[in-house]
Amino acid sequence: MNEPVQRAGTGTRVRDGRLLRGVRSRQVVARRAADVASVEGLNGLSIGRLAADLGLSKSGVQTLFGTKERLQLAAVDFAQQAFVEAVVRPASAAPRGAARLRSLVEHWIAYVEAPLFPGGCFWAANLADFDSRPGAVRDALAAQHHGWLALLAGEFREAVRAGEAAPLDADLTAFQLDAVLTAANIALRLGDSGAVDKPRRVLAELIGPPV
Amino acid sequence: MNEPVQRAGTGTRVRDGRLLRGVRSRQVVARRAADVASVEGLNGLSIGRLAADLGLSKSGVQTLFGTKERLQLAAVDFAQQAFVEAVVRPASAAPRGAARLRSLVEHWIAYVEAPLFPGGCFWAANLADFDSRPGAVRDALAAQHHGWLALLAGEFREAVRAGEAAPLDADLTAFQLDAVLTAANIALRLGDSGAVDKPRRVLAELIGPPV
Repeated sequence: MNEPVQRAGTGTRVRDGRLLRGVRSRQVVARRAADVASVEGLNGLSIGRLAADLGLSKSGVQTLFGTKERLQLAAVDFAQQAFVEAVVRPASAAPRGAARLRSLVEHWIAYVEAPLFPGGCFWAANLADFDSRPGAVRDALAAQHHGWLALLAGEFREAVRAGEAAPLDADLTAFQLDAVLTAANIALRLGDSGAVDKPRRVLAELIGPPV
Repeated sequence: MNEPVQRAGTGTRVRDGRLLRGVRSRQVVARRAADVASVEGLNGLSIGRLAADLGLSKSGVQTLFGTKERLQLAAVDFAQQAFVEAVVRPASAAPRGAARLRSLVEHWIAYVEAPLFPGGCFWAANLADFDSRPGAVRDALAAQHHGWLALLAGEFREAVRAGEAAPLDADLTAFQLDAVLTAANIALRLGDSGAVDKPRRVLAELIGPPV
């Protein structure tokens, strides 16, 4: 947003009101788009279908997002914000290293068990789908995925530095941990309710059990 | 096929010819359906689109498969046969245990590097998509996935029995190995050409490097 939300003058207030409603509507549509995409994939999104789901006019949603790709990118952004709120931010209360890795894994498990999105992990559903479709959506998903891997690797390096873990390759360890979380999400959704213990056991092998 | 392919009588021969052509056409359509599904997901399949791709009539493909679900199941079956030919059968030439695990992983890497399907691993693309869609297609994908995990676990148990690996939980080890292979497939398709070394390194930690 480049425009200030409050400004003098009645005409401006009306415009600001519209702007605020526009921002709220974008959030409402982006949230619904992220939910749908977690189940049916980002490629299953359509402006017409979201408008119908939310009781909005198709032309209104069209005005907010313009193209299907911009709608997909808004869903990807919304999912990222929701993931940060559910997993990354609460875990940042734990001390860096092994404790924060454990907290990240526990919050991640809660994120797919609860689940935050009806289809489970947003990235598990969409990275596997978009890895064969070059473009802005794939780039955005890949950048978020790399950010998550870098976060895990950074905490593992801290754990090694603090003597809480054996000095394994941090990038390979982060790759393994993310791979096992993603596989647990799929197993959970296929009906194996005990699957979420697997990443806990893998993590315990890497940094020891919780103290 | 319940009908014999060769039988006496001209009329029967004509029918058998049609039956053979029908079987071949089914294979041609199922192969194309598996290719499309590896890129766009099984849900992206449509009888009309496949008919257009292959220069067949829509009604002809409709006659062969009937419903979209039967077409999806045919694609899933075809993918399984192709995977067995490319990965499971050649690896079965290696002695059981560590050597066969290494061979399975190497053939799996070739299967996604070559790749056998244009979208990379068929199950990575479709399990993540279908885990939220109960039904016959999900059940077929899940059964194949469990068969693959059981194969890996069985060879790991052999490796432990032969003293080639530490006595870790075989099911957890198979889960980890499959998770890392699946994650490597996605990383490879996102442009990280070195990703396939990661499952090799994980396997080497489990059963030691190739001799």
